[in-house]
Amino acid sequence: MTHFEQDLASLKETLLTMSSRADSAVARGIRALVDRDDDLARAVIEDDSILDELEKDIDAMAITLLSKAPLAKDLRLITVAMKISQNLERVGDEATTICRRALELSQEPQLKPYVDIPRMAQTGLDMLRDALDAFVTGDAEKARAIVPRDKDVDAINKQLHRELASYMIEKPTTITRALNLMVVSKSLERIADHATNIAEEVVYLFRAEDIRHLGKGQNGSSNS
Amino acid sequence: MTHFEQDLASLKETLLTMSSRADSAVARGIRALVDRDDDLARAVIEDDSILDELEKDIDAMAITLLSKAPLAKDLRLITVAMKISQNLERVGDEATTICRRALELSQEPQLKPYVDIPRMAQTGLDMLRDALDAFVTGDAEKARAIVPRDKDVDAINKQLHRELASYMIEKPTTITRALNLMVVSKSLERIADHATNIAEEVVYLFRAEDIRHLGKGQNGSSNS
Repeated sequence: MTHFEQDLASLKETLLTMSSRADSAVARGIRALVDRDDDLARAVIEDDSILDELEKDIDAMAITLLSKAPLAKDLRLITVAMKISQNLERVGDEATTICRRALELSQEPQLKPYVDIPRMAQTGLDMLRDALDAFVTGDAEKARAIVPRDKDVDAINKQLHRELASYMIEKPTTITRALNLMVVSKSLERIADHATNIAEEVVYLFRAEDIRHLGKGQNGSSNS
Repeated sequence: MTHFEQDLASLKETLLTMSSRADSAVARGIRALVDRDDDLARAVIEDDSILDELEKDIDAMAITLLSKAPLAKDLRLITVAMKISQNLERVGDEATTICRRALELSQEPQLKPYVDIPRMAQTGLDMLRDALDAFVTGDAEKARAIVPRDKDVDAINKQLHRELASYMIEKPTTITRALNLMVVSKSLERIADHATNIAEEVVYLFRAEDIRHLGKGQNGSSNS
């Protein structure tokens, strides 16, 4: 292993650390919401600064590596690593949003049992894990298979949105809670978008074929 | 001017083209909303693919340039250009979101005169223009002055959110329209976030001092 390869391996390792932290922020955020655990929600918000730091670390490592990269292939890999870290940082921001809303929601009785929200979170987190795994193993096929799953999360988000809107119409006292749950649902939908962005970058990287933005025009899956 | 400098100038020029297209997408989206002009809304959605293409073009130019960059300073500039283009692509996505909601809103009578929404759009677009201008002229001070303006947009978004929630409580028939306007308002808040992200990158680039994520922990201005 050359010195360059070692540095590249350590960049990937830092990215995996960041990914597992972002993943755990979302999982803990959802647990805080479901268990109405305010301390946990506050801890997740507090820990977001670690992700911010990791993004900066990855940028600094990437800049150093770019100056030594021998091949165009390496340059692409390094710039994709920077993009992935930016997406992971935003996943962390969404976890913070979820926790802020969880703190508001725990001040009132629970509106309804949470079924769709943990399911969306699970799908989004699976997508995120698979995308990072595809990046590390260089598996374009695995990455490509992630993209259509974004539609499942979009569909649950839309359905939940409709359901919550009905609650609001039938019983105006539920409006505040329904709005908070809509924001949580939207955050989860955005986490799946970030996983999709990462997957598209990985496909592009290992297939040299750009599928980003394909099929977005018609269904606009990432827009609401 | 060396060959490298020419290529760098052309990268910046493409970024400015992208920026003016993103800017115009938002401005036209808001006009479509205010004038209830469905054809304009559809045209903006259609044109989003141009921004997607420009992001890919910038990535390709950046990769080529990175392999020839003589100095660490150039590497940073090129990677910042890639990040700016990613933010501009998302500004375009928000313009699409605004237009989709405008199309829904124009199917019902107007809920109220739009005052805050054009004001938020104006502030966000001013921030975006200033951020790009600071990038091109290398003006860290100008970029730094953009960051606190994000709070103004956040404040209008929150106030509008409260106002729309009151409408919903008082008159449930307004719920669908109020929800659509909340999404538009949130999109404008995100556009200001993207402008802030760009400004922070520019400060980092020209001051080598990283202000990204500063002060986010307490007030969480980019989270809802």
